[in-house]
Amino acid sequence: MCAGGRVSGDSEVRIIGFDVLPEVQAGDDLGALIGDAIETAGIGLEPSDIVAVTHKIVSKAEGQVVDLRAIEPSPLAAKFAAEWEKDARKIEVVLRQARRIVRMDRGLIIAETKHGFICANAGVDASNAAPDAVVLLPDDPDASAARLRDALARRFEVAPAVIITDSFGRPWRDGIVNVAIGVSGMAPLIDYRGERDSAGYELSASILAVADEIAAATELVMHKLAGRPIAIVRGYAPPLPAAAGTGRDLIIGPERDLFR
Amino acid sequence: MCAGGRVSGDSEVRIIGFDVLPEVQAGDDLGALIGDAIETAGIGLEPSDIVAVTHKIVSKAEGQVVDLRAIEPSPLAAKFAAEWEKDARKIEVVLRQARRIVRMDRGLIIAETKHGFICANAGVDASNAAPDAVVLLPDDPDASAARLRDALARRFEVAPAVIITDSFGRPWRDGIVNVAIGVSGMAPLIDYRGERDSAGYELSASILAVADEIAAATELVMHKLAGRPIAIVRGYAPPLPAAAGTGRDLIIGPERDLFR
Repeated sequence: MCAGGRVSGDSEVRIIGFDVLPEVQAGDDLGALIGDAIETAGIGLEPSDIVAVTHKIVSKAEGQVVDLRAIEPSPLAAKFAAEWEKDARKIEVVLRQARRIVRMDRGLIIAETKHGFICANAGVDASNAAPDAVVLLPDDPDASAARLRDALARRFEVAPAVIITDSFGRPWRDGIVNVAIGVSGMAPLIDYRGERDSAGYELSASILAVADEIAAATELVMHKLAGRPIAIVRGYAPPLPAAAGTGRDLIIGPERDLFR
Repeated sequence: MCAGGRVSGDSEVRIIGFDVLPEVQAGDDLGALIGDAIETAGIGLEPSDIVAVTHKIVSKAEGQVVDLRAIEPSPLAAKFAAEWEKDARKIEVVLRQARRIVRMDRGLIIAETKHGFICANAGVDASNAAPDAVVLLPDDPDASAARLRDALARRFEVAPAVIITDSFGRPWRDGIVNVAIGVSGMAPLIDYRGERDSAGYELSASILAVADEIAAATELVMHKLAGRPIAIVRGYAPPLPAAAGTGRDLIIGPERDLFR
């Protein structure tokens, strides 16, 4: 059923959330589980579909979960945890996941991960995990995205783009937003430089991080309470031809980053 | 027509872009123009619709456009422009729009605006403007959003939420993304703290900037080449009850910002 009347197809994007997956365990075949969910929902896959998957189920399937009972906090982790009433074992895991500490203050750790992401707690996540466990980022989110894309392409007639998402904070703005940490089968950035708009004016500040925008859009249906770890974005048409890239392309190079 | 089969209503969000508005001029009644566009598209407004409008047409309607031919660059603007091959008059306008310079390096100026936004060029935009003109941010984007909401509520049976958008860069990540700079009629942040997920685990880092996520989603249909300055988000249901707020709520307070 489709309420709301006529809408021209080329200007509409649909964000479709999925209701349930079984609780994902280490070693699960996530591509098969996601394929099952798409089949159960009865919507199939269409060319140009983008499948967004929250990193947490990717990490769980890949065994990127740490049992805190086996963690011995360092003196630094113990001191910071005591000062800010945190779990020293979680702080220790965060420090081990960091290749550089960007800020460590007021109980918060902003750190650069081995992938190059700069985010809170080096991507270590204690929500949606068992009490004595924390979930790490996937070892290589782009490779995870590519594997899921391959699995879905083998099962369905089309190869969707795949985005692995996480929620990152931003300096200066409140709240966190979903971003793309792994990308396969689409251009994560669209470069408008040199193009002209409908009025003939050249576009200036104009490299759009569309994979991050798509990731953000999917959070609207796969939000945390609903337990919906997958969404399909249907109808998105890139405004310019662009080669497919990866989530690494969304990390700004040090030479262009004023905020290292 | 609704291709793609059965999808449960509560897990689908539609992002609907509009094809054309006339070129907006200072003094135009933007609420009337947007109402006309919604009527022409034949999709009406539904309860819980969110109307996103790019700030540029808001600023143009409000006369927030500067004629560069009347601008006398300061020595600082002239020096920075000469060093980085920029238009000294544009640099001068940027400096006048800034209440604080956060970075001024490599030809880029990251500045805090009077509203509290920290963004490139203090929000001054030279794209989609006449050759000797630049477009400023709206004087009060939340008030602009509230006025548009009132105008649409008077014309249609329902009062949509309204978001005014701009494209901001982010430290550490490449590309720009649409964010919400003005909000009326919805909660810009959803606070999950203390809530439990479907598995019973308490959610931790969990204030979601949903207005920014919605703004990001709308860029996927109202992108720069298409000349589509409006989009409707249909079907979004906030996951928790929350009081309506404004775009100012999305600016993090100095006491909580590690990156001032």
